[in-house]
Amino acid sequence: MSVTDELLRNNEKYAAGFDQADLPTPPRRKVAIVACMDARVVPTEILGLGAGDAHVIRNAGGVITDDEIRSLAISQHELGTEEILLIHHTDCGLLKITDDEFKDKLEQATGRRPEWHSGAFRDLETSVRDSISQVVESPFIPHTDSVRGFVYEVETGRLREVV
Amino acid sequence: MSVTDELLRNNEKYAAGFDQADLPTPPRRKVAIVACMDARVVPTEILGLGAGDAHVIRNAGGVITDDEIRSLAISQHELGTEEILLIHHTDCGLLKITDDEFKDKLEQATGRRPEWHSGAFRDLETSVRDSISQVVESPFIPHTDSVRGFVYEVETGRLREVV
Repeated sequence: MSVTDELLRNNEKYAAGFDQADLPTPPRRKVAIVACMDARVVPTEILGLGAGDAHVIRNAGGVITDDEIRSLAISQHELGTEEILLIHHTDCGLLKITDDEFKDKLEQATGRRPEWHSGAFRDLETSVRDSISQVVESPFIPHTDSVRGFVYEVETGRLREVV
Repeated sequence: MSVTDELLRNNEKYAAGFDQADLPTPPRRKVAIVACMDARVVPTEILGLGAGDAHVIRNAGGVITDDEIRSLAISQHELGTEEILLIHHTDCGLLKITDDEFKDKLEQATGRRPEWHSGAFRDLETSVRDSISQVVESPFIPHTDSVRGFVYEVETGRLREVV
């Protein structure tokens, strides 16, 4: 049995006990979170959020690209969120690669070199600050009074604010 | 107190009981999930996944753009995942807007028209199938034997496979 099949069995159990059919579409806490895809970073757990509470956007690194701006724009313009939390984390895979090395690797493996940036960064705090700037400076994000950035420590479970 | 401040208080409690300092970086179940950012869709809950089990990538709609290909490429090439689950859901906000209407709205609000596509789609199953194709056809995703797509029913908690 594949892992996917196992997860589908888990879902059958989840659905059997499901009792949240009446949650509205707009996030109850009016918050959107952008975080790394890392398996150790579970934003709802870390922040004590339940189903229906917040939009959660995730990618490799928790960096900001056009796709995060698109998602945040939909979150604020269409679904009423007003605060944004940006979460990078210690021991991130993107601290361990460089853009050139990763692209070289892909080119050697596939014969094609990606046109996108890998997202690799050298310093966590700098990357969080860059992400805050990208969000605040985007013309498409209207609510920027509370755009705060954090480093999640995978060693302690703690969020450390980057100011 | 802002909602963000409340969530930081929740995190202090989480960190106080934290006992997962030793999780390795590569996802234990070797799975990456791409799902919508919707507040009602909590992939770890729906699939019975714990911290450390899977990469979770999320955006508005759960659609595939260059940023999801980037994240999946890093997931497979750098961190050993081999299976992919793509999750859209019923009652999705992207079924309720059109690309032109959303861009008109942003242009009226900001004076600028985004260059990116909004991600809006008209049919859930078609969008899931498009996402599967985009992943399978990407030269940068080496493991494509198990790329499966689902509609999550927010009314029942059940995942329905799209074939």
